[in-house]
Amino acid sequence: MARISRRRSAQPPKVVALGGGMGLSASLAALRRITGDLTAVVTVADDGGSSGRLRDELGVLPPGDLRKALAALCGDDDWGQTWARVIQHRFQSKGELHEHAVGNLLIVALWEQLGDHVQALDLVGKLLGAHGRVLPMSAVPLELQALVKGHDPERAEDVDTVRGQANVALTRGEVQSVHLVPHDPPAVPDAVAAVLDADWVVLGPGSWFSSVIPHLLVPELLEALTETKARKVLSLNLAPQPGETEGFSPQRHLEVLGRHAPKLALDVVLADEAAVPDRDSLTDAAKRLGAAVELAPVAQAAGSPKHDPELLAAAYDRIFRMHGRIGPWR
Amino acid sequence: MARISRRRSAQPPKVVALGGGMGLSASLAALRRITGDLTAVVTVADDGGSSGRLRDELGVLPPGDLRKALAALCGDDDWGQTWARVIQHRFQSKGELHEHAVGNLLIVALWEQLGDHVQALDLVGKLLGAHGRVLPMSAVPLELQALVKGHDPERAEDVDTVRGQANVALTRGEVQSVHLVPHDPPAVPDAVAAVLDADWVVLGPGSWFSSVIPHLLVPELLEALTETKARKVLSLNLAPQPGETEGFSPQRHLEVLGRHAPKLALDVVLADEAAVPDRDSLTDAAKRLGAAVELAPVAQAAGSPKHDPELLAAAYDRIFRMHGRIGPWR
Repeated sequence: MARISRRRSAQPPKVVALGGGMGLSASLAALRRITGDLTAVVTVADDGGSSGRLRDELGVLPPGDLRKALAALCGDDDWGQTWARVIQHRFQSKGELHEHAVGNLLIVALWEQLGDHVQALDLVGKLLGAHGRVLPMSAVPLELQALVKGHDPERAEDVDTVRGQANVALTRGEVQSVHLVPHDPPAVPDAVAAVLDADWVVLGPGSWFSSVIPHLLVPELLEALTETKARKVLSLNLAPQPGETEGFSPQRHLEVLGRHAPKLALDVVLADEAAVPDRDSLTDAAKRLGAAVELAPVAQAAGSPKHDPELLAAAYDRIFRMHGRIGPWR
Repeated sequence: MARISRRRSAQPPKVVALGGGMGLSASLAALRRITGDLTAVVTVADDGGSSGRLRDELGVLPPGDLRKALAALCGDDDWGQTWARVIQHRFQSKGELHEHAVGNLLIVALWEQLGDHVQALDLVGKLLGAHGRVLPMSAVPLELQALVKGHDPERAEDVDTVRGQANVALTRGEVQSVHLVPHDPPAVPDAVAAVLDADWVVLGPGSWFSSVIPHLLVPELLEALTETKARKVLSLNLAPQPGETEGFSPQRHLEVLGRHAPKLALDVVLADEAAVPDRDSLTDAAKRLGAAVELAPVAQAAGSPKHDPELLAAAYDRIFRMHGRIGPWR
């Protein structure tokens, strides 16, 4: 214990977490417990729900995943907790505001008022007393498209293009690959800088094709991920996602990720032993990405698809210590 | 100067400003310059625009005038100024959010989330670093109704009931009187307490029938205004308001106010000399309310209907010193 305390009172590891949606929130809820230097980089391809309506109506970035990440980092005091609940609040009515999340409206208003995505998100972070920074991966709203085999059940062998994250998430076919439109969106410079400056980059967990892989499709971000001295840990999901990754094994998750970024090397793949039916296949697949497998119990309960923040924090902490390259926290 | 500084460094006067809309904002912009102990009590009968839509859709108090009052009290630093601009920001689109003010949505979300009107408004005040408190006059959404002569131009002598503040504000007839539905709404206890505890109560300027007089129609608030030891100043408008008070002289404003609260005595009536065509008639009308007339230049420019905050502050300051009953600030 004394050793851990000493380590923590020294410089904390600089950690960048890439993802989107609930998966990223789970990762942030864990990482905030083990470092004070945390940056979230968030996908901006969502086109469903409140975010989708805001994109359509106002032509803005989808704010929803950014909002969720900010809420996951909110301060521990009453003030931070209250504002986190407020930004997560959704109106319920029979009218035009139904299901809009207040934080989405607030973030969009700040974008319109300040004219700067990053400055606006920093301001919401300050409001929440957030334990870290939240950045969009790109300042351009993106469309996710997928090549899907059997999207139309009547043409089971045909591969079709499915447009939009909401549609991709719901397909009954088998997703082969995803790409972004536009194809080469500019990355947010602060996100690139954070990746280059990090000690650790954490990718996933989350919706594989719509929240995790998109980060690898932004050229400047992929370049930063390839060039950075940071170690990289990929956090696997606890279960396949109906629709998007129906029936995918853990190793299949690694294979499709690798196909989208053949030059990217990883250092560690984190999985829950209970979610790994075939450890050897996973080890082989990880090895092809340059990574070692670390198994740890990280589920909220046996068979739950949700990560427990305490357990996930313990797993990250162990990995950072065991696999860290440099730094006083080893 | 030295004397003024001494006075101000002592206990500041406790001031309660009653009103709504732009008139109350003007009053608050002035009063915040001369006291650190300021409470705004705001009408909740608005049914137009963003507030009206929120009432209809969510069954909440109209937040718009509360939002404007909070913005008028925002902190002087970058943080306060920025958040004031954000809560005043209105979406512009061809869709469902068009013209909604972000602060309205935020206030309503806080009401829904915290379940307490006053606590929620205090929290927004804290966010803004507000120089004072903002309270609704009642926690019940109210409908303003008016008896209007000639509302229908084809029946010029008939008196009709016009329902809703937005309609009253636009009538081409002559407003005879207004009343609230429900007739005896409960006052917000903190508003009653603030009036009873005040050194000065400031009523107006503002839309006479829809922002100023409604305060006298809430029984508990009228009772507090009658019983309080506070001195009362009524701040007249710089011009009649098309529709609501078309063609009304300053003394006519006093007469209709007096008819709505026959037992209420005032101490001072503040008017701009340039907006008073007949000083003797105004003096007589004020005397019937128990008040002395104070004339001061308070317009932004000759003939402008808008108050200048600096000039209005100077006028209030002079009145508080000359007419104050007690206290170290005399």
